[in-house]
Amino acid sequence: MAPAAPKSGDVIFASVDRVNAELFTLTYGAIVRQLITDLEEVEEVNKQLDQMGYNIGVRLVDEFLAKSNVSRCVDFRETAEVIAKVGFKMFLGVTASVTNWDAEGTTCSLILEDNPLVDFVELPDTCQGLHYCNILSGVVRGALEMVSMKTEVTWLRDMLRGDDIFELQVKLLKQVPEEYPYKDDE
Amino acid sequence: MAPAAPKSGDVIFASVDRVNAELFTLTYGAIVRQLITDLEEVEEVNKQLDQMGYNIGVRLVDEFLAKSNVSRCVDFRETAEVIAKVGFKMFLGVTASVTNWDAEGTTCSLILEDNPLVDFVELPDTCQGLHYCNILSGVVRGALEMVSMKTEVTWLRDMLRGDDIFELQVKLLKQVPEEYPYKDDE
Repeated sequence: MAPAAPKSGDVIFASVDRVNAELFTLTYGAIVRQLITDLEEVEEVNKQLDQMGYNIGVRLVDEFLAKSNVSRCVDFRETAEVIAKVGFKMFLGVTASVTNWDAEGTTCSLILEDNPLVDFVELPDTCQGLHYCNILSGVVRGALEMVSMKTEVTWLRDMLRGDDIFELQVKLLKQVPEEYPYKDDE
Repeated sequence: MAPAAPKSGDVIFASVDRVNAELFTLTYGAIVRQLITDLEEVEEVNKQLDQMGYNIGVRLVDEFLAKSNVSRCVDFRETAEVIAKVGFKMFLGVTASVTNWDAEGTTCSLILEDNPLVDFVELPDTCQGLHYCNILSGVVRGALEMVSMKTEVTWLRDMLRGDDIFELQVKLLKQVPEEYPYKDDE
């Protein structure tokens, strides 16, 4: 039997269970506030958000592969497109665009113009070093690690810091295809 | 002009921005885990989750009133029904039922058979005193306080503790109608 065709992010997003985005936004805001209170140092909060995101990404990848019918991507370029168009849509309800590729095809940027995490958010002066959305960079890193791509994920632009968009740079450090946890014919 | 008719929870839920429920579930799980690590005492975690929920409820009530076209409820009975049928549906995508009323009509239970917060969750033995969903009791308490109903909200049954349903008891302590922040004709 031919494998099922990959589904679009819109189709998957329409079919999964969802909760109200404002509830999610406020709940995420409550986490960040809690971490700032508990950890005090903004750099520590950034690290902790990234680690929480990593743990989430490691688990979300299962739902992603199960629901999207996406099979193994041929290369990092295709992987980046799938994250931007299917992954972001499926989980956050928004799509990203992929740009700023380097010559080797191992570094690119995901551009988000709309980001439900930051609705109603303004950073006070005391939090200027905060990467408020660092959970997202962690999710991307964790999810990619589960499909054997070790990456470094960095915010280059951040609307909460006055930029006009969110730009998340994803740099492929190492790819270990044989550790891929799913076989195509399973 | 006649006021717009109240909308059903289904209609509102279909119209608001949403995110993937699994992302929400895992993000909430990450908060709880973080609080357990930081605060150590389960009782403190319960308090903190309730307080976070309270802060969220205080803000969510605005979106609720704006989107639902619900006007002032005539009494606590009607309020409880609106929370169960419209509020829960609008934010979590599930409805609750209202039962176990006392003779005075000031105490009732909201029954949840399905709760997206606890998908995939199992409590380890070290967390047996934890009210994992305490954010919800806080949300209900905070939202009701914004419409001038001071309440006490307590979990009577909890599926993570082996019960067959979630039962959230809501007890009206005090009602101060004149502090209601919205006039019907606004």
